[in-house]
Amino acid sequence: MRVLGVDPGLTRCGVGVVEGVAGRPLTMLGVGVVRTPADAELGHRLVAIEQGIEQWLDEHRPEYVAVERVFSQHNVRTVMGTAQASAVAMLCAARRGIPVALHTPSEVKAAVTGSGRADKAQVGAMVTRLLRLSAPPKPADAADALALAICHIWRAPAQNRLQQAVALHTAKAPKGRTA
Amino acid sequence: MRVLGVDPGLTRCGVGVVEGVAGRPLTMLGVGVVRTPADAELGHRLVAIEQGIEQWLDEHRPEYVAVERVFSQHNVRTVMGTAQASAVAMLCAARRGIPVALHTPSEVKAAVTGSGRADKAQVGAMVTRLLRLSAPPKPADAADALALAICHIWRAPAQNRLQQAVALHTAKAPKGRTA
Repeated sequence: MRVLGVDPGLTRCGVGVVEGVAGRPLTMLGVGVVRTPADAELGHRLVAIEQGIEQWLDEHRPEYVAVERVFSQHNVRTVMGTAQASAVAMLCAARRGIPVALHTPSEVKAAVTGSGRADKAQVGAMVTRLLRLSAPPKPADAADALALAICHIWRAPAQNRLQQAVALHTAKAPKGRTA
Repeated sequence: MRVLGVDPGLTRCGVGVVEGVAGRPLTMLGVGVVRTPADAELGHRLVAIEQGIEQWLDEHRPEYVAVERVFSQHNVRTVMGTAQASAVAMLCAARRGIPVALHTPSEVKAAVTGSGRADKAQVGAMVTRLLRLSAPPKPADAADALALAICHIWRAPAQNRLQQAVALHTAKAPKGRTA
């Protein structure tokens, strides 16, 4: 399973590609940051993010894209930009028919560190260890993107089982007639 | 001046095209709503909005796109979707090199009704009168999109004068050497 993780942001959009399956050592295929100038017009920044994400999709052909789920209770000034950058990442993936998964920051932290309240340093340290890197990826947005991809690989089996169970239950439930 | 107004939303994205200049009667060239199903995946909804906006840009070739500026103090549940839909509209315009203008809801209300705290009915009534329509456009999102376009046409001269003054001042200011 090859996953592109995206930590959305207008100024720095973290991107990281991880390959592997749950229960086996994981491999990092690439990590980086798509940057846009803070003084550029918003429309132009979104176009630059689109071009950056498209390059990562072209180069790595991920089977899944995992994007951080944005909450509006965060910093009011930055949350709108984060939501807009995440929309561009989801749009790029969905346009290619690549499934998009959203994971909350605490799901990601819990997946890689065991605690939903871990700090940036802890996440960086675990990403470094799990991907057998020589140093934590910088900036933190890049490490967070890798953590998102790892989280998706590890959570996917459970999510799939859950979806299958729901589908089975829905199919069995006597919910009106079917042709 | 031909302006596409966009009242962003995931479920209903209002769109309206108005042509005219400040101080002259305005003409409505089109109005409608881009809808996406609430039960569809977010990525697919964003792709549907992109396709809808592209159709409106193709058909009407506006010189400007005016989008409602989204604030995060609104309803927490809907604001993220609104921000994401607005990102797609801005992206579509900027990709074509069409300038994007953001106007706040109170700027729009003040422009068409004289009061920044006017209600939906008042905005709908004024849009109907200003564009000489036989009835207020439905749903309200469609009327709001037209109000955005009208607001942009009426505010643009003042904004242009301001930008020219800033540009002139910047050019005159002794800010380092130029080749």
